[in-house]
Amino acid sequence: MQLTRYTDYGLRVLTFLAVRPESLATIEEISDAFGISRGHLMKVVHELGQAGYLETLRGRGGGIRLARPAERIKVGDVVRRMEGRMVLVECFDPATSQCRIEPACGLRPILDEALAAFMETLDGYSVADLVARRRTPLARLLSL
Amino acid sequence: MQLTRYTDYGLRVLTFLAVRPESLATIEEISDAFGISRGHLMKVVHELGQAGYLETLRGRGGGIRLARPAERIKVGDVVRRMEGRMVLVECFDPATSQCRIEPACGLRPILDEALAAFMETLDGYSVADLVARRRTPLARLLSL
Repeated sequence: MQLTRYTDYGLRVLTFLAVRPESLATIEEISDAFGISRGHLMKVVHELGQAGYLETLRGRGGGIRLARPAERIKVGDVVRRMEGRMVLVECFDPATSQCRIEPACGLRPILDEALAAFMETLDGYSVADLVARRRTPLARLLSL
Repeated sequence: MQLTRYTDYGLRVLTFLAVRPESLATIEEISDAFGISRGHLMKVVHELGQAGYLETLRGRGGGIRLARPAERIKVGDVVRRMEGRMVLVECFDPATSQCRIEPACGLRPILDEALAAFMETLDGYSVADLVARRRTPLARLLSL
């Protein structure tokens, strides 16, 4: 079981921004800090902007920053947004599922319940918890 | 987020066997019922055998069947066995992780907790729950 790279990168961008919420960051900086391609990051940053988690200031000296305090961005909401529909197994996507026992199979409701428990846990944390009291070592690791 | 196809197929094989626990099944039958290649199923069946969930009777008229009652095979244990190490995000595999903030990042313990909640839910169910009281429609869907 794994989350998409898209979600992973989304959480990293928000962590980066939460480490120094007072300044603007550029995609180049985040790309360099994590060794992630700018192309990937552009899409991730666009999505996070659409979701209202970060804002972009254009022009010279512009950049991105959190659109609200890190405490008010739930990890669960970020994961939900970045993952989109979670197709844990084939039958979670009725449009493409070819599993013929689906109409009578008991697996789907059990996995739905487990996924709800997973997300409920994540809803108990915010992006501020990703940084917590480790802002200084995080800044050092990010060469900030 | 998704489970591997390997896990999906493992659960299907056990469901198939639980639908008619009194008879032996062949890989060919399961392959035909689900439209899954025999090659894939061979590996899945081998793993389920190694885990002690099913047993193989060799020779003419041989086949596979559950090695114990479906009530005594936890869905959580099957998922744990088939998934192997769950690398939810890069840092779950320290051998290959290249995320540089890992030493100070708060994400890993949060995802660990969410994953534990996911698995705990699955531990509350057995393969018998996948079939439940739907044995007859399941048998029909599987052309049994």
